[in-house]
Amino acid sequence: SSSPMDRQNRRQGFMEFPHLSAPHRDLMIELVSTMETRLGSQLLPDPLPLDVQCYQNAAGTSQGALHIRPGDDTSSIEFILGSWIYCELPSGGALNITTLMAYLNKSTDAPNFVLEFVQMSPTSMVLILDLPPRKDLPLYPDYLDTFYVDTKLDGCRQALQKLPEVQPYFSPVLYVRCVWSPTATVVHIQCEQGQESDQARMEEIVRDHVSPIAKQVLGIWLDKCACGEGREVKESERSELERRDRVIRTKTIEIDLVSNLPRLFGPDVGSRIVNAIQEFLNK
Amino acid sequence: SSSPMDRQNRRQGFMEFPHLSAPHRDLMIELVSTMETRLGSQLLPDPLPLDVQCYQNAAGTSQGALHIRPGDDTSSIEFILGSWIYCELPSGGALNITTLMAYLNKSTDAPNFVLEFVQMSPTSMVLILDLPPRKDLPLYPDYLDTFYVDTKLDGCRQALQKLPEVQPYFSPVLYVRCVWSPTATVVHIQCEQGQESDQARMEEIVRDHVSPIAKQVLGIWLDKCACGEGREVKESERSELERRDRVIRTKTIEIDLVSNLPRLFGPDVGSRIVNAIQEFLNK
Repeated sequence: SSSPMDRQNRRQGFMEFPHLSAPHRDLMIELVSTMETRLGSQLLPDPLPLDVQCYQNAAGTSQGALHIRPGDDTSSIEFILGSWIYCELPSGGALNITTLMAYLNKSTDAPNFVLEFVQMSPTSMVLILDLPPRKDLPLYPDYLDTFYVDTKLDGCRQALQKLPEVQPYFSPVLYVRCVWSPTATVVHIQCEQGQESDQARMEEIVRDHVSPIAKQVLGIWLDKCACGEGREVKESERSELERRDRVIRTKTIEIDLVSNLPRLFGPDVGSRIVNAIQEFLNK
Repeated sequence: SSSPMDRQNRRQGFMEFPHLSAPHRDLMIELVSTMETRLGSQLLPDPLPLDVQCYQNAAGTSQGALHIRPGDDTSSIEFILGSWIYCELPSGGALNITTLMAYLNKSTDAPNFVLEFVQMSPTSMVLILDLPPRKDLPLYPDYLDTFYVDTKLDGCRQALQKLPEVQPYFSPVLYVRCVWSPTATVVHIQCEQGQESDQARMEEIVRDHVSPIAKQVLGIWLDKCACGEGREVKESERSELERRDRVIRTKTIEIDLVSNLPRLFGPDVGSRIVNAIQEFLNK
């Protein structure tokens, strides 16, 4: 129903990342471009209504963008999802959440991809970077070896962890801790020496330390998971895989969105976005 | 084949913990006693040969004790296992590993109990304290709620984590990270200011901070898991539960013992202990 021009505009809306620092924006654009270039021919256009692709609250103090590309029939991609949310806080600061996720379908049991930045201020952010497993790892040591040991994924986490500004982060929500892999980079980055240079240091960390590992993890995911060979799932195992995927997706979206969006954007806008996502997922 | 007197002696051998500091020994004795008192009537005698209950290498520089109590037919306990290993290192220090574990059987799917101390020196230890789940948590949010959210288990981890000497620990073996729960206390405690008081501080931390949470977690396990009600497992789910338990047990024993005991005690003693454990497990 929208013209190609409209779509293009909205698309740029999402890709503009207007509230990120330059190195952070560069990283996000490069990651989304890499993903869409590599998978491009398998990806369908964004099915979301325009007022879900970009949205804001009545006062204009909260803004968001959402970008979804489903995989076509030939693809092992279920969909990729990009999102950003910017919310000015009554306290004066702003909350800034940037997400890039990719979900595979039941033709493969290879891990998904997730990258999330939650910025509480320009000098403090939580980073989640992972290939969440789609099997119960303790029961499948060979799966662990294939995707986590042999790929040396833990090296990415270790490299970042060496910086004094970086500490392991424990989500207060136990469920989300359960869905991450043992090599997940889940950290709190704080540059809070109380100096003017704090913000520059955060940008330096994003450019010199976060960017390389985010690109590396995405590369591993594209090579071994999205475009990997030989992970065909037996017909008898597909329904169990699908059930696990569905439970996790429903539960994490409940935790991430259903409770937060109405609070951050008001009930009308919030439920419009939540409903659109749920409608897409249940299709 | 051994007299009650022999058994009693060996039993005290295990319970003596000759290489631990006083507060650490007190804690271990209290935990084992609490467990055996509470579960006592359901526990069978230690089936291990005497030369497996206590063992050492040819030079006498490595010593170990192993204590197993299987549950009887009426019990939900598969077995409890206590162990300590002391190995003088060529470098001059000593490695000291103390373990207390409890495994439930397929009559319930409630979590197991694990406590492990790995001391590299009197001022540095890794602590693992957890109720490892027996289900694939992302698929069973209600199981997570019952055993981990409602019990406020994460508070134990958080309390210890507040000490400046305590840091999260990441096992180099990815498999073992996978079997722990999201509330697992897996930390490295280091009192290494290079002062004479370092060792006293470590003992203080064990007495005032580790002991209370270890007792609390054991209490939760005894009340909600070992002696809990209403977790009956359907006949149709028992074989899957049993398979998962077996894979994890085999794999973790491989990682913990099969590779380490022969290295620490020499091939003869090492394989005697490993074989005795595997024989017990495969019975």
